[in-house]
Amino acid sequence: MNAEANSAWAKDKAHVLHPYTDFASFHDEGSQVITGADGMHVTDTDGRKFIDAIAGLWCVNIGHGRREMAEAIADQVMKMQYYNPFGHSTNEPAAELGAWLANHAPGSLNHVYYTCGGSTANDAAIRLVHYYFTMRGDHRKKKIISRNNAYHGATYVAAELTGIHGTKNSFDKVGENFIHHVSAADMFAKPEGMSEQAYCDHLVQEFETRIEQLGPDNCAAFIAEPIMGAGGVLVAPRGYHRRMWEVCKRHGMLYIADEVVTAFGRLGHWFASEDVFDHQPDILVCAKGITSGYIPLGATLISDEIYDVISRPQCEGGVFSMGLTYFGHPVACRAALENVAIIEREGLLSHVQEISDYFQSSLRTLAEDRHVGDVRGIGLMAAIDLMEAPEEKRPFAASFKASDRVFNACLSQGSIVRPVGDRIILSPPLIIEKDHVDQLTGHLRNALTYLRT
Amino acid sequence: MNAEANSAWAKDKAHVLHPYTDFASFHDEGSQVITGADGMHVTDTDGRKFIDAIAGLWCVNIGHGRREMAEAIADQVMKMQYYNPFGHSTNEPAAELGAWLANHAPGSLNHVYYTCGGSTANDAAIRLVHYYFTMRGDHRKKKIISRNNAYHGATYVAAELTGIHGTKNSFDKVGENFIHHVSAADMFAKPEGMSEQAYCDHLVQEFETRIEQLGPDNCAAFIAEPIMGAGGVLVAPRGYHRRMWEVCKRHGMLYIADEVVTAFGRLGHWFASEDVFDHQPDILVCAKGITSGYIPLGATLISDEIYDVISRPQCEGGVFSMGLTYFGHPVACRAALENVAIIEREGLLSHVQEISDYFQSSLRTLAEDRHVGDVRGIGLMAAIDLMEAPEEKRPFAASFKASDRVFNACLSQGSIVRPVGDRIILSPPLIIEKDHVDQLTGHLRNALTYLRT
Repeated sequence: MNAEANSAWAKDKAHVLHPYTDFASFHDEGSQVITGADGMHVTDTDGRKFIDAIAGLWCVNIGHGRREMAEAIADQVMKMQYYNPFGHSTNEPAAELGAWLANHAPGSLNHVYYTCGGSTANDAAIRLVHYYFTMRGDHRKKKIISRNNAYHGATYVAAELTGIHGTKNSFDKVGENFIHHVSAADMFAKPEGMSEQAYCDHLVQEFETRIEQLGPDNCAAFIAEPIMGAGGVLVAPRGYHRRMWEVCKRHGMLYIADEVVTAFGRLGHWFASEDVFDHQPDILVCAKGITSGYIPLGATLISDEIYDVISRPQCEGGVFSMGLTYFGHPVACRAALENVAIIEREGLLSHVQEISDYFQSSLRTLAEDRHVGDVRGIGLMAAIDLMEAPEEKRPFAASFKASDRVFNACLSQGSIVRPVGDRIILSPPLIIEKDHVDQLTGHLRNALTYLRT
Repeated sequence: MNAEANSAWAKDKAHVLHPYTDFASFHDEGSQVITGADGMHVTDTDGRKFIDAIAGLWCVNIGHGRREMAEAIADQVMKMQYYNPFGHSTNEPAAELGAWLANHAPGSLNHVYYTCGGSTANDAAIRLVHYYFTMRGDHRKKKIISRNNAYHGATYVAAELTGIHGTKNSFDKVGENFIHHVSAADMFAKPEGMSEQAYCDHLVQEFETRIEQLGPDNCAAFIAEPIMGAGGVLVAPRGYHRRMWEVCKRHGMLYIADEVVTAFGRLGHWFASEDVFDHQPDILVCAKGITSGYIPLGATLISDEIYDVISRPQCEGGVFSMGLTYFGHPVACRAALENVAIIEREGLLSHVQEISDYFQSSLRTLAEDRHVGDVRGIGLMAAIDLMEAPEEKRPFAASFKASDRVFNACLSQGSIVRPVGDRIILSPPLIIEKDHVDQLTGHLRNALTYLRT
């Protein structure tokens, strides 16, 4: 760090209200200032270089510092950097990306509502669901069922959809009359001795029961990440998503797949819902990997059926009065088009399918450590649960800050991992190679020794 | 337009769910495709060139197609395009821009929470207000008072803050228990014969009464645009903002200034609240002009007092658990830094102060037209109210689509204006010169003749 008054470190500490900051230490320590990024690595102001094993924040799928991206973005800035997308007006990248998304998304997800990221895309999904049922005349069908440990973003409503207890402390709620939560699908939380199939039955039954309690005529939609991300890379039992989707269909509910993390290659496919989990959602939310985080962009994809209902005038002369200034931003959409071109050109989807086994099995060797309760994941998402005594499922004391210790020990060796609660989360760029996996696993193995007490 | 199946026009029509679209005509007509933009002008697929008299959507303050912007953006993409801003981590442009904002914003607005645009910045402002009062122990102080005809964005909560009736048709509400509306401050709506001073007294009294009704201990904040933008460029009576701010102070309420449109030069100042309206808000929301729309970015500026309260741990080990992936996005913040450098280098604030008189007085010559009810504005914001019989305050029939007629007549002459309800709204780039004003006024004068029946 550079503590001079005029340094970025000092300015940041004085003026930036940081997300997910522990203010008990921030006022003294400030932030690490990341100044460079290239491929798998980022560097800080002290010139230290790190493997970015979290791809920024689940998003830098094509890796950092791509010249093709800089060139495409600059070209679009010079060509047409922004124009009003409201009314009968559009731009080429927004139209081209809309067609690309429709061609690659599952089922009849042929229409796109653009936003600025995952939070706004989930927020928009809920507004669109409510609007859709109103336009259909189903004025009571408004309740949204989400899940404990779900993460759906940080707008007021997206934060309410989120079911991670720790994010809610001292924050108010909104929409409590229409947002409800059921259990997370979490194989690690499966009761001892219960079969995977029985656990899935249990979750599906809980969902059915909740719908009955709320009244099927009041239930509008279910929202779920294919793999719960920030909640801890929680993997559902086999068949779960398909069966939850079937329950939705039976009750005339919409299924919203929050693929903000999983879309654009993290599981080796453009989208995971159909290719990995065998169902076609009615709404699919994406962001992050859509531009690999180079420019903010989100997209809420909706089915033909929904579009047919909502693309009618609300009333004589009425317009569809919902939209962000940066809807279909030409520079963001152009970045997305270049991003998917890179993923295609370099065969990154099949690369992920190939490297994932090596990545997952390397990490699973860490399960032998005495303080590791579980190692799990799929594709290029993984989590390591830290526990004081795994055999007794006894956690570390919160004051021990186990995941911070592992994070710091990795950092000092040259890898950035993500501490979330008592977990370490990993989501590297899709360009990761075996030697990166080896380095990362080595750093983690050594870091775990810092938990010996 | 190019109706071939593979054209941007066809792809847009098939796949993009457009904001503020009239679907009665969209399915046939599709969108105008804007493909080029330079300085004061944009061009479409047919090669037609237009004066962009709305600066995209109140945002392209420095004008279109700036090479300095393309170069700064590309440079940042290559240097460090994105890294996780959560926890104790930051980047140089976010830190530098934070310091710039703190140095230029009024009062003690020394801390910035970054978002992706105006909607998320307003949404965040409300979450922060609620969090602030909880952290202070004022658990009841949660109600937000907004205004009829206000526009505050399109997240679920921002749309609820919005008070424009026409945007609400068939959309659900959220947060009705804490969001309330008082009258717009609108000199054109001032009762016949009432003095400006008496009208201001009336509005302030209405606000006081509402607070008494809701209970001062329940009232957390007032949110207001300095000039109501999308609501129709509504100008408040002299002294209004200062007096509303004084009422807030008296009741321990926070004043949120939504300067998404007015900040970064539109009224000839970096921020309008203090320089134009003589008060220091507790929270100032900006977006649009912060990057001139080149890259999506928003910022919620908060006072030292609020920061001191919220920058404490929520609980032992608790973190400030609120943030967007694209918080402080380095490419967006770098674009903002280059944008303000251009505004400074080219003296655009003083240019606006000089050209505004010419702009406003030229437009006011249109007031003589038999179908113009009012022409008003300040700085480089203006609105023209269209009426069938202004002397009787009789509006056109909705089916006549008066503003669409004027919009189309301007378009065919080479100017883009914005039809909103029965109004034409103008908000040109800050680089506008007298000859552009002359052309625009000429196009409008001729277009108004299309209203003769």
